[in-house]
Amino acid sequence: MYLNLVIRLKLTNKPGTLARVLTVIAQEGGTIGAIDLIAASPSCVTRDLMIRLDSRDHLDRLVNVFEQMPEINILRISDRVFISHQGGKIEISPKRPILNWEDLSLMYTPGVAGVSEAIAEETDMAYGLTMKGNSVAIVTDGSAVLGLGDLGPYAALPVMEGKAVLFKKFAGIDAFPLCLNVHEPEEIIEVVAACAPAFGGINLEDIAAPKCFEIEEKLAARLDIPVFHDDQHGTAIVTLAGLINALKVAGKNIAEVKVVISGAGAAGVAIAKILMRAGARNLVVCDRKGAIARDVPPRQPSKLWIAENTNKRCLHGPLKEVIAGADVFIGVSAPSLLNREDIMKMAEKAIVFALANPEPEVEPKEIYDVASVIATGRSDYPNQINNALAFPGVFRGALDCHARVVNDEMCLAAAHALAGMVSEEELSVENIIPSVFNDQVAPVLAKAVKQAAKQTGVARDFHVRPITAVK
Amino acid sequence: MYLNLVIRLKLTNKPGTLARVLTVIAQEGGTIGAIDLIAASPSCVTRDLMIRLDSRDHLDRLVNVFEQMPEINILRISDRVFISHQGGKIEISPKRPILNWEDLSLMYTPGVAGVSEAIAEETDMAYGLTMKGNSVAIVTDGSAVLGLGDLGPYAALPVMEGKAVLFKKFAGIDAFPLCLNVHEPEEIIEVVAACAPAFGGINLEDIAAPKCFEIEEKLAARLDIPVFHDDQHGTAIVTLAGLINALKVAGKNIAEVKVVISGAGAAGVAIAKILMRAGARNLVVCDRKGAIARDVPPRQPSKLWIAENTNKRCLHGPLKEVIAGADVFIGVSAPSLLNREDIMKMAEKAIVFALANPEPEVEPKEIYDVASVIATGRSDYPNQINNALAFPGVFRGALDCHARVVNDEMCLAAAHALAGMVSEEELSVENIIPSVFNDQVAPVLAKAVKQAAKQTGVARDFHVRPITAVK
Repeated sequence: MYLNLVIRLKLTNKPGTLARVLTVIAQEGGTIGAIDLIAASPSCVTRDLMIRLDSRDHLDRLVNVFEQMPEINILRISDRVFISHQGGKIEISPKRPILNWEDLSLMYTPGVAGVSEAIAEETDMAYGLTMKGNSVAIVTDGSAVLGLGDLGPYAALPVMEGKAVLFKKFAGIDAFPLCLNVHEPEEIIEVVAACAPAFGGINLEDIAAPKCFEIEEKLAARLDIPVFHDDQHGTAIVTLAGLINALKVAGKNIAEVKVVISGAGAAGVAIAKILMRAGARNLVVCDRKGAIARDVPPRQPSKLWIAENTNKRCLHGPLKEVIAGADVFIGVSAPSLLNREDIMKMAEKAIVFALANPEPEVEPKEIYDVASVIATGRSDYPNQINNALAFPGVFRGALDCHARVVNDEMCLAAAHALAGMVSEEELSVENIIPSVFNDQVAPVLAKAVKQAAKQTGVARDFHVRPITAVK
Repeated sequence: MYLNLVIRLKLTNKPGTLARVLTVIAQEGGTIGAIDLIAASPSCVTRDLMIRLDSRDHLDRLVNVFEQMPEINILRISDRVFISHQGGKIEISPKRPILNWEDLSLMYTPGVAGVSEAIAEETDMAYGLTMKGNSVAIVTDGSAVLGLGDLGPYAALPVMEGKAVLFKKFAGIDAFPLCLNVHEPEEIIEVVAACAPAFGGINLEDIAAPKCFEIEEKLAARLDIPVFHDDQHGTAIVTLAGLINALKVAGKNIAEVKVVISGAGAAGVAIAKILMRAGARNLVVCDRKGAIARDVPPRQPSKLWIAENTNKRCLHGPLKEVIAGADVFIGVSAPSLLNREDIMKMAEKAIVFALANPEPEVEPKEIYDVASVIATGRSDYPNQINNALAFPGVFRGALDCHARVVNDEMCLAAAHALAGMVSEEELSVENIIPSVFNDQVAPVLAKAVKQAAKQTGVARDFHVRPITAVK
């Protein structure tokens, strides 16, 4: 993990000192960002240098070198990530000011009593008169935090806050972290169901497979608001969108290609399902033991589904074997499972989505000349398959029509809308998917999702009557 | 319940029309606020009139009269309370902007992973690096919403949002409504305990007695963050603060006065307890059946506590009898239980806190000349006993020292600090307590509460290290 640092140095005020500092940093492989002047006197200059180093070792060496140089005095070294997290990342604020008794009586007692009574009479009024219509719970038990594993609900909190930031930034949604200190599927289900009234949707996040499948399924059946497991459906939507465009670039048809998926966790299973809904027919999913096939039925229900519904030719063997002749590889598994030779065994114009993060299943730079389209989960390569392209727009669309569920049709609509945002002219091997910072993504997806919800009859019609139309 | 309305009228553009409109409104007892000009032409003028009417009947009659007048055309009538509630009252926003990949990598992946690992190593780091250090859950099951009863979690939501608004406005605290769709004490306890990691405190709200006592007690024992039931302790703190000053005005001593409390619910029990902690020795609590006494032990544990610890002389009989000779009456019960004659039976310089809301136990205007100090729960009389004077400062103080609990000492410190905000010179029969809009209230209480927490050893010491001090 690299370090983003701010180093404050007091330097002797002589020409050439700063240049020497920068040289030393460069020798340690450091990247230099902004340089601020904090204070200056005839004898000294104090500066903040923003630098990025590849590891703690590099930092220790850098400090050692600085300490040998009499013209440099280290005042402090701060980690920019930790600075960015001080005091947390989200806040809860009133939407309208309360300045006086009049405001208080309208927004709190006694006025609020009339609103409570209206909702008691008709529950759906909560969509118009409370936060419910624009709010999403981000639910985790911290059992699969990023790629780090079971760190628990406290350690998951900064990730869920970050997610809340993205919900607001990209879709104007008020999302709140529920980091749960329970871990059995039944317990998680009970707690989320109990907390549901204030929310218009539930986003499950970083919950380990296979319990994530059971939790999602049972919660969706029990609640009358959308339940969306981002690690499954978010990843699946963006992957399908990318694949639709990658197939266009490679001139292939989804119904005819051989697709090999590496990883049968939350993402792998969901990707297999959405690809089949989108028309893929030749699909092989590998877990650590190799290709999952129906003649060796796995016990886990989600893998059993894979065994029964994919791999029609009943291929066996490790990933490195079954990938031979494949048109498409989609990895949602682990770093460095494949190398250049493996990719060379694939069909011509191979499509490689190596989505393990931060280290992909195969290094893109090893295979630029042997694959047609390469996508990763990283922002420093082209074609980033990033969930943030999907979940804000999906929930925006679902909330906008007060949907009761998120169904397959809504997910497919999101994927097609996302793929459609890259025009024929823009489409290329290095441009199959929009940027996360394209602010049209969420509105375009929302529109498609809302339409699909209405067409499938899962939108909620109700009459908010904040205006008492007497006449 | 009165109505706050905006009425849009199209009036014939002739001198005297508006005057006639206002006359008609006055005849229906309406109070007129702002009058806006929306549009004007040689023939017509469109205006918005903000008016307050006592009831829906008055509105219907007003509309009837307007409809008889050819120079008036009603365009629409809006309820200002409902307008103020459209789309809810709170929002969740990033504390820092995310504008580019750099920001995203610091606040979300990959940077956030380092923060998660730091918290996984040392849970208390969450206080410095996440929202936890400044967040409070407002928990209800909607079983006692305002004075309206068991309206359920959906109808409770606008009240809890209003509370969240007050938390932010008065103490800068990020509070979030957990409106629970479970109602058994054990279920509520399990859900709140599961959700606790993201919060630095729990505010229980509008949960019916007697289950509120059990929930608070068990949660406080189980969690390592403060659990505060505002209907109990908030009311008790402000009542004690008011009483301290009322006794000063009346020249009486808390150890010597006879206090009669009407109401043995959440507020009544908590007030009895805090008054005894503050030195009161002669206390009688009445429920609907009359004085609670130890020779007729009630079954409910909270009332049993009252029976065993108050009413030493074992008085019996209805409120109207036991109030004879009392120096202090505190009502947290029901409207119009007492009249002028009852108050006249009290001791000289009687102190009457008639806190039932919106209709007090006895009408202040009936007893101005027979009582010494009168307080109510209403903002339109002097001496408003309002919980909003306590909970923001109490939680601010508790959060500022990362307290593990809210204990009696902290509540007493809050009450004394609140009472102390009215100086000897300002103190009078009509001024025993600060205004809710006095922005010094929360900071002053917070300081006292924090100090009491430290003195009683319930503050949490920990070292947040956002700064990697290499040297």
